[in-house]
Amino acid sequence: MSLKGNLLVGQSGGPTAVINASLAGVVEEAKKHSEIADIYGCVHGVQGLLKEDIADLGREKPDTIKGLKTTPSAALGSCRYKLKADDAERLLRVIQAHNVRHFLYIGGNDSAETCHTIAELALREGYEMRVMGVPKTVDNDLQYTDHCPGYGSVARFVAVATMDAGRDTEAIGIVDNVKVIETMGRNAGWITAAAGLARREELEAPHLIYLPEIAFNKDQFLSDVQNVFGRFGYCVLAVCEGLRDAEGKELAASGSTIDTDAFGHKQLGGVGDLLCDLIATNLKIKARCDKPGTIQRMSSLIASSVDIEEAYMVGQAAVRAAAEGTSGQMVTLVRESDDPYSCTTGLVPLEKVAAGEKKVPREFVTPEGNFVSQAFLDYVRPLVGSLPKYARLELHRVAKRLS
Amino acid sequence: MSLKGNLLVGQSGGPTAVINASLAGVVEEAKKHSEIADIYGCVHGVQGLLKEDIADLGREKPDTIKGLKTTPSAALGSCRYKLKADDAERLLRVIQAHNVRHFLYIGGNDSAETCHTIAELALREGYEMRVMGVPKTVDNDLQYTDHCPGYGSVARFVAVATMDAGRDTEAIGIVDNVKVIETMGRNAGWITAAAGLARREELEAPHLIYLPEIAFNKDQFLSDVQNVFGRFGYCVLAVCEGLRDAEGKELAASGSTIDTDAFGHKQLGGVGDLLCDLIATNLKIKARCDKPGTIQRMSSLIASSVDIEEAYMVGQAAVRAAAEGTSGQMVTLVRESDDPYSCTTGLVPLEKVAAGEKKVPREFVTPEGNFVSQAFLDYVRPLVGSLPKYARLELHRVAKRLS
Repeated sequence: MSLKGNLLVGQSGGPTAVINASLAGVVEEAKKHSEIADIYGCVHGVQGLLKEDIADLGREKPDTIKGLKTTPSAALGSCRYKLKADDAERLLRVIQAHNVRHFLYIGGNDSAETCHTIAELALREGYEMRVMGVPKTVDNDLQYTDHCPGYGSVARFVAVATMDAGRDTEAIGIVDNVKVIETMGRNAGWITAAAGLARREELEAPHLIYLPEIAFNKDQFLSDVQNVFGRFGYCVLAVCEGLRDAEGKELAASGSTIDTDAFGHKQLGGVGDLLCDLIATNLKIKARCDKPGTIQRMSSLIASSVDIEEAYMVGQAAVRAAAEGTSGQMVTLVRESDDPYSCTTGLVPLEKVAAGEKKVPREFVTPEGNFVSQAFLDYVRPLVGSLPKYARLELHRVAKRLS
Repeated sequence: MSLKGNLLVGQSGGPTAVINASLAGVVEEAKKHSEIADIYGCVHGVQGLLKEDIADLGREKPDTIKGLKTTPSAALGSCRYKLKADDAERLLRVIQAHNVRHFLYIGGNDSAETCHTIAELALREGYEMRVMGVPKTVDNDLQYTDHCPGYGSVARFVAVATMDAGRDTEAIGIVDNVKVIETMGRNAGWITAAAGLARREELEAPHLIYLPEIAFNKDQFLSDVQNVFGRFGYCVLAVCEGLRDAEGKELAASGSTIDTDAFGHKQLGGVGDLLCDLIATNLKIKARCDKPGTIQRMSSLIASSVDIEEAYMVGQAAVRAAAEGTSGQMVTLVRESDDPYSCTTGLVPLEKVAAGEKKVPREFVTPEGNFVSQAFLDYVRPLVGSLPKYARLELHRVAKRLS
């Protein structure tokens, strides 16, 4: 089973708060395997690999590798690069030239596709190499895994930010009536859904949650906002940047070519401002938008401790699997129990992961389609670690003495 | 000197991460003074006071008051209400009806104006009452105080968010070339300036900082961005929502009446998207905007410990001053030394505070006008508490074996 040679690891796709924890897991585990000689990293993923831009991670200080566990973003540099037909031969030549026998790629759906292509190529060319995918995506949209490393931290950020923005709007809602929090999510509403964790009492934010899985209906939306505003005097909404109408058309897709990435995905944004306009114009109440953008997926100080540990664990598991002879697979997270929460790792063919996205299932949304269900809250709660506890004054009113 | 009666405290203006710490300081200090009978809070500031909406804070659990130190936003509810001429008589009647002899108002410039009006009114009507202002504003634009409670926390948020977004752009900058971080600040660039703390090495974010105190020049701006991009392959900018052109006109002011508050200030927003468009159109490179909005001023988990302590301290100091017979003054923060940092409290007439705003002085900006100076960094560093330390790989390149 033992295959002597070097290990090469790369990071790909949108960075997260914990993708470096997976890198730390890979490097620290690789050092324990005597058949692995050098530990290499490709700089900026396969895009760097094509240029033979490779760094020797074995020469990094152990403290630096350890520090990666609490350092956000992709320390090796990332990329969004779709392999072209004529890249294949070049890639394999680079890999062979550096005697890479274990190839690990940390990323999401698109990275699984890239990783699968490399595994197939090596097989076809008869080059013995073990190829493993390490899951990573804040979008939480990988199939065959309970959840994705990176998601717990962005979910925690969104939950805490919604608690904070909610308290803000509660205090100043008599002036700034409506707050719209726009979160990431191209096709799946997992990140937005996590805002639901913020609400512990009925009056608390968020009051409404809109996901791309549920077709957006303008009249229903305005009626929802009006109802909440009438009841509490303010309203906080969490909305996904990828909201779609009944025809499946994105409410706020940029038409500019410069905003389309190598995989043909349009950059989204602006749905929050669009909804604020809709509210101000139709309901004549003031609405403001918060759009934390990249900050939501990268916050090191708000990262989930559970997420950090699991990200490290999938990195380790990928090295172990490769060392045992596994190839063409991605590591998955398998939830063993909810209370107490425990999670182990499994395996799934890369090909299957690359083929699809996991959307938020209908049973994770309320029948009305404007909030998340208890089943979703039970699913997400263990992933985010602890949430802050805020004080709330009882505000015992003093009897009025004037008319 | 001792004046027997009740104390009334209110919160006003935009909530912050630490305005409740000031409320805790007021309540816990007031309990120590035997001449203060009941401790009241007006719900939603003077707007609630006009409706005689008063809560008895003496009946709150001590743990709740203690918990306010780590609870963001205004627990009493806030307002943005400019007193009208015919409000005056009503206000004084409410105050007299509840035997309020110590009136404390936590807020910024506009709140100092309100507070001053109440102090003048009581004096004119011969009603003996001590009126004290407690400083609060994330904008850091109050004169006569070294800095304002609330600022240290938003500064820490912006510094950390810039570190995080910077690492993100560094990793994925080959795809998403430019990141614009839009921060709050109507007329003063203090919040935006704090992004400068994120940069510890030359290649690190932010590369450029633009404040409303320096007239925005489009050609210079595009040239700055092009230069940084040419050098590092990516570029991160911190920009203030209140950016102005050479004529003093805001680059991105909303024209809608619904977006103008009671003090006539226009709601700003959109300058980040505007600059992204400018970059994409003129330089043909991709630019994205992060706009954390209210989240920046409200983050409890990223709040500065120094800020929390000082916010509590100014609340205490206001009660002590009132108990000693002071009136018509606002508590200030007086920096005693930089290293080790130490700060005490002082006093300034409310009238003087209400009269103006403190902008970022020219010497806190580099001669080129596109970054902050060392003098500013020395000023702001002690206010934010500790910043995270991130690992950075050395990336020792492996020799190429292919041509």
